[in-house]
Amino acid sequence: MRVRAVIVYDGTGYGGFQIQSNAPTVQGELERALAGLTGEDVRIVAAGRTDAGVHAEGQTIAFETGWRHSLDELQRGMNALLPEQIAVSELAQAEAEFHPRYDARIRRYRYTIYRGLVRHPFHERYSVHIPGPLDLGAMARAAQSLVGSHDFLAFGSPPQGSNSVREVIRAEWSEDEPWLVFDIEANAFLYRMVRMLVGTLLRVGRRRLTPEEFEEILKGRDRRRAGPAAEAKGLSLTRVIY
Amino acid sequence: MRVRAVIVYDGTGYGGFQIQSNAPTVQGELERALAGLTGEDVRIVAAGRTDAGVHAEGQTIAFETGWRHSLDELQRGMNALLPEQIAVSELAQAEAEFHPRYDARIRRYRYTIYRGLVRHPFHERYSVHIPGPLDLGAMARAAQSLVGSHDFLAFGSPPQGSNSVREVIRAEWSEDEPWLVFDIEANAFLYRMVRMLVGTLLRVGRRRLTPEEFEEILKGRDRRRAGPAAEAKGLSLTRVIY
Repeated sequence: MRVRAVIVYDGTGYGGFQIQSNAPTVQGELERALAGLTGEDVRIVAAGRTDAGVHAEGQTIAFETGWRHSLDELQRGMNALLPEQIAVSELAQAEAEFHPRYDARIRRYRYTIYRGLVRHPFHERYSVHIPGPLDLGAMARAAQSLVGSHDFLAFGSPPQGSNSVREVIRAEWSEDEPWLVFDIEANAFLYRMVRMLVGTLLRVGRRRLTPEEFEEILKGRDRRRAGPAAEAKGLSLTRVIY
Repeated sequence: MRVRAVIVYDGTGYGGFQIQSNAPTVQGELERALAGLTGEDVRIVAAGRTDAGVHAEGQTIAFETGWRHSLDELQRGMNALLPEQIAVSELAQAEAEFHPRYDARIRRYRYTIYRGLVRHPFHERYSVHIPGPLDLGAMARAAQSLVGSHDFLAFGSPPQGSNSVREVIRAEWSEDEPWLVFDIEANAFLYRMVRMLVGTLLRVGRRRLTPEEFEEILKGRDRRRAGPAAEAKGLSLTRVIY
């Protein structure tokens, strides 16, 4: 049976989603929980390989299992075995061919900024604290130039052998004091792209760049003029649409 | 000069507010930051000694200092030196006789319960997850019996040489899905009182006790029938009123 699940995680203590040898990973924890429940050596595939420290509320995974009990019990069993930083929020049987990465049509990320005058300890893990003035109008205009199909080479690296053209469907800043959030949806993203975009947009907000210069960086595909990348902890993969 | 400040903290990693030898404490971190800034051996006094793992959004402290720069610089300096789990949200000069514990008229605590079907990693630190059914009407009625002056011996220990009568001004459950919160205000609290009350009220919610039995426990001052204490991580000292 092929299973599809939505995963929520606090990425703070992890070396990213994908398994690696020198840090705990979200994939590693999920596979360990599945091995404990099923006795099988389960390999999971995910929609996106989030970076070290990046969170998720809507990561989507799939795996094969010979599990003979109910799917409800599988979900509850996983949530009982997983560490508190990781949870399975939805779980269902999938089509035999379902692939969370290749079949994904749209990925949505959210970057969260806390605007309170003083940093707030409760909000440290899931946002970055930027109390100073920001030109939100300029940031909104610069973000608008991202919508459409563009070569995003200035803002990230494509996987080997692939190109760097991506289609952005939505790129919007919205304010709900003391929060400022950036929501971006695209068919796919380059490595580190959202953090590079946010870091560069914040330079527009601080009036170090104009929206026009931001657009020139995009069009010029010149990585030396972009960034620096915004901190990982403000970023979350909020949803994957199929 | 006497200074009064409001402190916000994530109590997760601390052995409580008050200095002790075998764990890091919030008081210890505050005094270390003040020593670093002022070069003085500053002793602070607080409104309430929160327990290990309990949070605060409105802890109030006072201390004496010979600080010669502005109070704004003192607050910013403290926030720069303190770990990210602790922040100074307000700071002002106080009357020479101001004492945060003896002068406090009302203390307000909030206990937060997350009611989502599946536990959520982003909410692990500041709430407890209770997805099952709870009789909120019965919990509200039981809470109502707390209002007024009562001997709360069933729910906590008074400091040595003091009695256990406290005056509760407000004790209310409110629901804002997926959150369920308990707000309680009193002139003062016994040691562990809020957690013991919440733990016992949850037994009412699960229909293991009736609101009438809850009231009998209060009136009978019988600690063996109360509790168990609810987990520390759901509790926060939200405000102290002078």
